[in-house]
Amino acid sequence: MTTQDKPWGGRFSQPTDQFVEEFTASVSFDKRLAPYDIQGSIAHARMLHKIGVLTEAECQAIVSGLHQILDEIERGEFQWSVALEDVHMNIEARLTGLIGDAGKKLHTARSRNDQVATDIRLWLRDEIDRILAELTRLQTALLDLAEREADTIMPGFTHLQVAQPITFGHHLMAWFEMLQRDRERLLDCRRRVNVMPLGAAALAGTPYPIDRFHTAELLGFERPAANSLDAVSDRDFAIEFAACASLILMHLSRFSEELVLWTSAQFDFLELPDAFCTGSSIMPQKKNPDVPELVRGKSGRVFGHLMGLLTLMKAQPLAYNKDNQEDKEPLFDTVDTVRACLRAFADMMPHVRPKRERMKAAARQGFATATDLADYLVRKGVPFRDAHEIVGKAVRQAMEAGCDLAELPLAALQALCPAIGEDVYEVLTLEGSVAARRHYGGTAPEQVRQAVEEARARLAQLNSTGGASV
Amino acid sequence: MTTQDKPWGGRFSQPTDQFVEEFTASVSFDKRLAPYDIQGSIAHARMLHKIGVLTEAECQAIVSGLHQILDEIERGEFQWSVALEDVHMNIEARLTGLIGDAGKKLHTARSRNDQVATDIRLWLRDEIDRILAELTRLQTALLDLAEREADTIMPGFTHLQVAQPITFGHHLMAWFEMLQRDRERLLDCRRRVNVMPLGAAALAGTPYPIDRFHTAELLGFERPAANSLDAVSDRDFAIEFAACASLILMHLSRFSEELVLWTSAQFDFLELPDAFCTGSSIMPQKKNPDVPELVRGKSGRVFGHLMGLLTLMKAQPLAYNKDNQEDKEPLFDTVDTVRACLRAFADMMPHVRPKRERMKAAARQGFATATDLADYLVRKGVPFRDAHEIVGKAVRQAMEAGCDLAELPLAALQALCPAIGEDVYEVLTLEGSVAARRHYGGTAPEQVRQAVEEARARLAQLNSTGGASV
Amino acid sequence: MTTQDKPWGGRFSQPTDQFVEEFTASVSFDKRLAPYDIQGSIAHARMLHKIGVLTEAECQAIVSGLHQILDEIERGEFQWSVALEDVHMNIEARLTGLIGDAGKKLHTARSRNDQVATDIRLWLRDEIDRILAELTRLQTALLDLAEREADTIMPGFTHLQVAQPITFGHHLMAWFEMLQRDRERLLDCRRRVNVMPLGAAALAGTPYPIDRFHTAELLGFERPAANSLDAVSDRDFAIEFAACASLILMHLSRFSEELVLWTSAQFDFLELPDAFCTGSSIMPQKKNPDVPELVRGKSGRVFGHLMGLLTLMKAQPLAYNKDNQEDKEPLFDTVDTVRACLRAFADMMPHVRPKRERMKAAARQGFATATDLADYLVRKGVPFRDAHEIVGKAVRQAMEAGCDLAELPLAALQALCPAIGEDVYEVLTLEGSVAARRHYGGTAPEQVRQAVEEARARLAQLNSTGGASV
Amino acid sequence: MTTQDKPWGGRFSQPTDQFVEEFTASVSFDKRLAPYDIQGSIAHARMLHKIGVLTEAECQAIVSGLHQILDEIERGEFQWSVALEDVHMNIEARLTGLIGDAGKKLHTARSRNDQVATDIRLWLRDEIDRILAELTRLQTALLDLAEREADTIMPGFTHLQVAQPITFGHHLMAWFEMLQRDRERLLDCRRRVNVMPLGAAALAGTPYPIDRFHTAELLGFERPAANSLDAVSDRDFAIEFAACASLILMHLSRFSEELVLWTSAQFDFLELPDAFCTGSSIMPQKKNPDVPELVRGKSGRVFGHLMGLLTLMKAQPLAYNKDNQEDKEPLFDTVDTVRACLRAFADMMPHVRPKRERMKAAARQGFATATDLADYLVRKGVPFRDAHEIVGKAVRQAMEAGCDLAELPLAALQALCPAIGEDVYEVLTLEGSVAARRHYGGTAPEQVRQAVEEARARLAQLNSTGGASV
Repeated sequence: MTTQDKPWGGRFSQPTDQFVEEFTASVSFDKRLAPYDIQGSIAHARMLHKIGVLTEAECQAIVSGLHQILDEIERGEFQWSVALEDVHMNIEARLTGLIGDAGKKLHTARSRNDQVATDIRLWLRDEIDRILAELTRLQTALLDLAEREADTIMPGFTHLQVAQPITFGHHLMAWFEMLQRDRERLLDCRRRVNVMPLGAAALAGTPYPIDRFHTAELLGFERPAANSLDAVSDRDFAIEFAACASLILMHLSRFSEELVLWTSAQFDFLELPDAFCTGSSIMPQKKNPDVPELVRGKSGRVFGHLMGLLTLMKAQPLAYNKDNQEDKEPLFDTVDTVRACLRAFADMMPHVRPKRERMKAAARQGFATATDLADYLVRKGVPFRDAHEIVGKAVRQAMEAGCDLAELPLAALQALCPAIGEDVYEVLTLEGSVAARRHYGGTAPEQVRQAVEEARARLAQLNSTGGASV
Repeated sequence: MTTQDKPWGGRFSQPTDQFVEEFTASVSFDKRLAPYDIQGSIAHARMLHKIGVLTEAECQAIVSGLHQILDEIERGEFQWSVALEDVHMNIEARLTGLIGDAGKKLHTARSRNDQVATDIRLWLRDEIDRILAELTRLQTALLDLAEREADTIMPGFTHLQVAQPITFGHHLMAWFEMLQRDRERLLDCRRRVNVMPLGAAALAGTPYPIDRFHTAELLGFERPAANSLDAVSDRDFAIEFAACASLILMHLSRFSEELVLWTSAQFDFLELPDAFCTGSSIMPQKKNPDVPELVRGKSGRVFGHLMGLLTLMKAQPLAYNKDNQEDKEPLFDTVDTVRACLRAFADMMPHVRPKRERMKAAARQGFATATDLADYLVRKGVPFRDAHEIVGKAVRQAMEAGCDLAELPLAALQALCPAIGEDVYEVLTLEGSVAARRHYGGTAPEQVRQAVEEARARLAQLNSTGGASV
Repeated sequence: MTTQDKPWGGRFSQPTDQFVEEFTASVSFDKRLAPYDIQGSIAHARMLHKIGVLTEAECQAIVSGLHQILDEIERGEFQWSVALEDVHMNIEARLTGLIGDAGKKLHTARSRNDQVATDIRLWLRDEIDRILAELTRLQTALLDLAEREADTIMPGFTHLQVAQPITFGHHLMAWFEMLQRDRERLLDCRRRVNVMPLGAAALAGTPYPIDRFHTAELLGFERPAANSLDAVSDRDFAIEFAACASLILMHLSRFSEELVLWTSAQFDFLELPDAFCTGSSIMPQKKNPDVPELVRGKSGRVFGHLMGLLTLMKAQPLAYNKDNQEDKEPLFDTVDTVRACLRAFADMMPHVRPKRERMKAAARQGFATATDLADYLVRKGVPFRDAHEIVGKAVRQAMEAGCDLAELPLAALQALCPAIGEDVYEVLTLEGSVAARRHYGGTAPEQVRQAVEEARARLAQLNSTGGASV
Repeated sequence: MTTQDKPWGGRFSQPTDQFVEEFTASVSFDKRLAPYDIQGSIAHARMLHKIGVLTEAECQAIVSGLHQILDEIERGEFQWSVALEDVHMNIEARLTGLIGDAGKKLHTARSRNDQVATDIRLWLRDEIDRILAELTRLQTALLDLAEREADTIMPGFTHLQVAQPITFGHHLMAWFEMLQRDRERLLDCRRRVNVMPLGAAALAGTPYPIDRFHTAELLGFERPAANSLDAVSDRDFAIEFAACASLILMHLSRFSEELVLWTSAQFDFLELPDAFCTGSSIMPQKKNPDVPELVRGKSGRVFGHLMGLLTLMKAQPLAYNKDNQEDKEPLFDTVDTVRACLRAFADMMPHVRPKRERMKAAARQGFATATDLADYLVRKGVPFRDAHEIVGKAVRQAMEAGCDLAELPLAALQALCPAIGEDVYEVLTLEGSVAARRHYGGTAPEQVRQAVEEARARLAQLNSTGGASV
C-alpha cells in the first residue's frame, strides 16, 4: 500500500518506510477490540440516522455490513492488513469494500481518537464484569471453606512467629475481606469506565448536530464525557483499573505466599490438589505448588503495567498523542492476568485440604496462649505492662524447661505472681483461647460463622446493586 | 535504656544494639501521628470504661493525662525517646509517668498492631479532607478562569501539531474534568479508609468483651473492620491513596507540561505570575516556570511511593510483619506532596494571564480549519474519505503557496472539487469553526459556559454529600 | 497427555487440570529460546562424551538429532505441545522420538533449572550484541549530523526558556554522550550475562564428574557460575539489562520530546522525513511525529518491565521457584522494544532536516547573549553578582522597548554601567557568543568538530575491545 | 528577603510568594552537600587563579573563607536561609559577607547548574566507597561463616520443597556471589559517577579560558564531562546507582526472607542474636526477626526511588529543568537505606547461630536423596527418564509406607528395577549425597572450602583495583 492510498496520504510526498509501518501499526494487538469497534460503529450509525446524516438505507447497509464483518472475524476469515494500521481502518476499509460509499460516511462526526477511547471502554467494562464473576466464585469458595473450618484451630502468626491460636475459618475470612475491597474498588472503577468519549471527534467535537445522549444510551454508557479534549486524552480509567488489578494481585501474592509456606514440609498445614501442582524433572519426590508460585510471580507483571501506564501519561500535553497507542498492550495483559489468576484460585480453593491435626499441633507449640495468661493476670488486677513482664519471665522458664506454659507447675507460676490460681490452666487451652475472642471481628468459631453469614449477604447485595451485567 | 526496661524485655538476654535500636525505631517519623494516637486512646479508654474495665476515675485520669501530653507535644516540650521505639510507647510511658498504674491499663484489649493501623487511618482521613479542600480551591479557580475565557480562541493540538481551533475556556474545562475524577476517587478511597481496626488487638481480637461499634462511633468511623487478622495486616488504604495521588500528580504534570510549553518564547500563550517563577543566577533575562517544572518533577516521587508500597506488601504472609513499619514515610511524603502541589496550583491559577492575541494568531496558522473544509465537503455530498483527500491536496497547495486555506482562490479550490462554492470561506474562520461545535461536550463558547455552570453544581453537590468534613 | 506421561508424573494421582496446564505452561513464549536450548544441549552432550557418560555414537546421534530439530523449527514444521510444558521438554521429547534412548541420556547431569538459565543467557548475549550494533548505527548518524551542523546556531534552553546560543552540532553531541553511557553500561552488563549456570543441575550440582569449564568454552562463556544455588536462582542479569534498557528508553524519550517540540509549528526547528510520520484521518493538514511520540510512550513499557522484574525477585527464597518463569516475557519484550526503538531512530536521524534559519532566528530572540554581557562586564572589572544585576536591568529595558539587547543604544547601556564601551556590541552577536565557548566540552564549532573526532575514536575502540561478537 | 535582593531579582516586578519560596527552595535537604560544595568551590577558585581570573590574594581569601564556613557548618553554627534557596547561594552569600567582593568573583565561569551536578557526584562517590566498605564487611562475615559451616548439612529447597541435601556453607556462598555482583556493579557505576560537570556553566560552557582538566585533577575526577549540555542535564548516575541499590536491596530481601523462614518455629534452622530482634508488647513469648523484616520491607522504598528517578527524567528536554531538583531526596534516602541495611546485616551475620541438628533432621525428611537414587540407576545403565519414573514410584511407596527411601527394603526397590543392588543404600546418605557433588560450583564441603578461598582472593583483588578510595 502506498502512502497515497492511506486515509491521510494526500499531504505526503514520501512512502512510509516498511519497518516504520509495522513499528507504528497497532492492528496486531488492537484487533482484539473489533467486536467493540463494531458495536460502537452500529450505535454511531443509528445516531447519525436519527439526526438525518444517514438515510435509512445507508444505516441498514452499514449495520448489516458490520454484522457480516463481525461474522468474518469470528470465523477467522477476516483479512487483517498492517498497512491499514489499526482495527478501525481495517474494518472501515472492509465495510467500504462491501457496501461502497455509504461505508465512508460512517466516519462522519467522529475520529479515531474518540473511536478508540470508546472501544477500550466498552471492552474494559465487559472484562470488569467477567473479573467480578471470577471474584464471586473465589469468594464463595472461601466462604464455603471458612464455614467448614470455623472450628479448626491453627496458629496465628505475626512476624512469622506463632502469636496466638486462631481458627482457620477466621484466616480464610481475612482473605475474603481483602477480596471484598477489591470488588468494591472494581465497581467504583467501572462507574468511571462507563462514560462515553464518542462525539469528541478528534478533540473539539464536530459541527454536526450529534445526539451524544442517544448514542450513550444505545451503548449502555452512563453518560457522555463532559469535555471533548478530556474525552480523547483521558486514560485514567486504564490506570485506575491497573491499580485495582495491582491490589488484587498483591492480595493473591499474599495468599500464595501462605499456600507455599503451608505446603512446605516444615509447615505441612495444607495439601493442594495434584491438578494444581507439577513435579520436577530431576527430583521425583517433589510436589511443587506451581499455581501459587506462578500467581505470586505474576504480581510483578501487573505492578509493572501500572507503572508503565503512569509513566506513559506523565507530562503529556493535551489532547491526543501517539504515545497513547501504548495503553493497550499493558491493559490487555493486565486483564488477562487478573482473570486467569482469579480463575486458577477459584478452581483450586474448593479442593484444598487442611491438615487439621498438624495445624493444631503447631498452635500448641510456641507459647501461643501467653497473651491469654497476660489477660488472665490483668483480670486478676495486675496492670497490663506488669502482667506482660510476668508472662515474659514465664515463657523464659518454659523455654529453659523445654515445656509449654500449661506444663509449668503452679508453684513456679505463683513464684512469678502470687495472684495466679488453679483456674489459670483453663485459659491456656487453645479452644478456650479462641472461644474467648468472641466480639465482632474476633476469631471465635461463633464469630466466624456469623461473619460468613454476613459476608454472603454483602456479596449478594453488591452483585444485585451492580446491575444486570455484574 | 536496657532491654530489660523495654515493654517486651522480659524474654531477652542481650541488650539491643545501639545502631539496631535506631534502625528499627519509628518514633523519628511516626510522632507525626501523636494527636491521632491520643484521639484513639481517649476513645479506647471511654469504651473500656463503658464495658467496666476502667473505673470512672481511671478513665478520667487517662483522658486528662492524654490531654496534657497533647499539650506538651503541641508546645514542643515533649521528650521523645528513640529507646521507646515508637509514638505509642512514648505516649504510654509518659502517661504512666503522669498518672501511674492506670496508664498501664490503657493498653488492655489492644496492641500496637491495631493501634497504629487506627492512628494512620484517623490521620489519613483528615488529610484527605484537606486535600479535597485544596482540590476545590483549584477547581473553582479553573471554573472562574474558564468562564472568563469562554470566547478566547486558541489552537487545539494533537501530536503537538495544530489540529483545530478551540476555546481556552474549553481547554481549562478539560483540566477541571481530570480533577473531578480525582475528587471522586478520593471520596471512594475515603470510605475505605474510614473503617476501624481497633479491637483486632495483635491479630485475633481479645478476650475482653469490647464494644467496637461504640469506639467506632466515638472516632467517627463508618464501621469496625470485620476481621481481626485483616484489620492489622491491611494496608490497601495506603496503596489506594497513593494510586489516587499518583493520578493527581499525573494530571498536574500534564497541566505543568502545558504551562511550561505555553510560557516558552516559541508558544508565548501565557504569562505566569512573577511570584511563581524564579530567575537564573547567570542568565538575568530568564523567567523560569519553576512551580510547574517542580510539580512535574514531583510526579516521579509519588509514582515511586506507590510502587514502594505495592512492593512492600507483595507476598507478605498474614498477619502483621515488621515490614509494615515502612508504610508511613512514603505515605506521609505522598500526602505532603499532593497537598503542596495542589496548593501551589490553586494559588497560581487565578493569576495566570493568557495572551489572547498570541493564542489566536497561533490558531490562524497551521490550517486549523482543514477539518471544517472536509465537513463542508461532506455536507455538499462528498463522501468523507474523499473529502479528506481533497482537503489534503488543498493543504498541500496552500503550504506550497505559503498561505492559509482561506487564502486559496476559489478557482483553485474548485479545481480540486467542483462542489465547492463561495460559502466555503465562511466555514474557514476560527470563530465559525468553534461556534459550530455546539453539542454537549463541544468547544463552542456557549457549551463552555454551560459546562461551567453544570460543573459548579456538581462541585457543590459532591461537597455536600461528602459530609461535614469534606 | 495424562499426568502419568509427564516427566514428573510418577508420584501423582490426579491428572493436571486443562486450564492449569495452559496457565503454567511456558512453551507459548519460551519456544523463542529453542536455538539456544539446542546450542546448549549440543555443548552439554559433547562434554558428557568427553567425561565418558555418552559414547561417541550416542553423542553423534544427539547432535544430529538436535540439528534436525532446529531445522524443523526453522522451517516451521515442529509440533509444539502445551502438554510438554516448555521448550526444553518439547525438544527432548522430539529427540527421543527421533533417536530413542540416547535422547533420554542427554538430561544426565543437568536439570531444567540450570538449562533455562543457560538458554536465556545465551539468547540475551546475542541480543545485546544486536542492540549494540543498532546503537552504533544511531551514534554514527548523530556524529555525521553533528559534524555537518557544527556551525548551525540555535537557542540553548534551560527551563524551556531561551538561555544562550549554542550550536546544533553541540546539542547532537549531548545525545551522543547519553548513548555512549548506554553502550558502556551494556558492555558491563554483558560481562555479567556471559557466565554459565550449566552444571548447577537442580540446585546443588551433580554427582557426575562434569567439566564445566569445557562446556563454558564450547559456548563462549567467560566462566562457569561459581555457586550452583546462585546459578539457578540468579536473575540479576535480567534486571540489570532492564535497567540499562530503561536508561536507553529514558534517553530516547528525551530525544523524542525535543523532536516533537521542534517539529511543532511554534518551534519549527526541524523537519522529520515523511516516512517516519503519519497523518490524521480527520485533519488532513497534520504531519504527526509518530515515531518520536511512540518511542516516548514506549519508555513506560520498559520502566514497567524493570519494576515487574524487581518485584518478581523480591523476597524469593533460594533456590529456584516457579515464579521465575515470569522472567521471560518482560525480558523478551524489553529486548524487542529497545531494538526496534533504536532501529527506528537510527533509520530516521540521517534524514532529519534542520531549518537553520528558524533556529538562528529563535536564538536571536530571548536575549540569549545576556550572559555574554555579564561576562563582558566581569572582564571589565565588575564583580559577577553586580554584573548580573546590571544585565537584569538591561534586559528589562530591552523588554519594555521591545528590542534585543544588541539594539539598546550605547548611552542606555552606559547609564546602567559606565564601564561599557563600543566593543560591547561584539560580544552580543550569536556567532561571537558560541565561538567564545571554546574550552573542552564547550559549544564552539571548533570544539564540536574536535568532539566528533574524539567520539569516532572512542566508538571504534569500544567496538574493538568488546570482542568479535560486539 | 525581597525579590530584588535575590541573585536573579533584577528582572522581576512582584515579590516571591512566601509559600512558593519554601515550595521551591531546596536548602532544607541540599545543605547535606555543603562539604562537597565547598570542596568543589575551592578547586574552582584554584583553577580560576591558575588561569589568571583570580589573584593570589583573592584565591586565598576565598579558600580561607570557605574553610571557615565549613567549620561553622560542622559546629552547627551556620545560619541557613530558605530565602537563599539552596546550599550554593547560602554559602556564597556567607562568603561574600566574610570576604567581600572577591566572594562574588567565585561564581565566574560557573553556574548553579554545573555546580550542583558536581556536588552530587563528589558526594555520591564518597558514599559509594562507604557502601563498598560495608559490603566488604558483610561479605567477609559470610566467608567466615561459610568456612565454619562447610560441612553442615541442610536441605536445599526448590519451590520451598525439600529438593536435595546441601551444605549450609554452600548456601552462604550463594549469598556471597549475589553481593559480589553488587560490588562489581557499584564499581562500574562509580566510574560513571566520577566524571566532572564543572565548566559546563549554565549549559554551553563559558567564554573564560577555563582549564577543566586541572579542576578535575584537583577533585580526583577521572575526566571532565565531554559535552556541556549533557553535563548539566545528565542524571544517569543517580538512576544507575538506584538500580544498583535496588539489586542490593532485592538480594537483602531474599536473605531476609530466608532468615525469617529459618527462625520460624516450623523451620527453626537458625537463631538470630537477641540484639537484632525485638519483642511484642502483647505477646511476651515472641522473638521477632525485626531486622530482616525491616530490611525486606525497605526494598520497596528503594525500588520506588528508582522508579521515581526514571519518571523524573522521562521526556525532559535539554538542558537543565527545575524538575531535576527532585533528584536529591530519593538519592539521599537510597544511599542512607543501602548503607544502613548493609551495616545491620554486617553486624548481625557473625552472631547468627545455625541449629545444625535441626537442619540435618530436615534434610533427612522429604526424600532429599531421590535424585541420587535416579543418578545411581543411570550409572547402572538405566536411561535417565526411565530412572526418574522408577524413583517416582519408589517415593510413592515410601510416602505410603511413611518411611524414608533408605528405609525401603531391597526387595521393594528391586521390584521396581532389578538393576538395584545392596550398594544403593550408600548413595542415599546425606553425607554421600553432598560429597558426590564435588565439581566446580557444587555443594561438596571440599568445594565450599575452595570457593571460600577463591572468594577471599577475588575480594582482595577488587578492593585493590578499585583504587585507594575503595
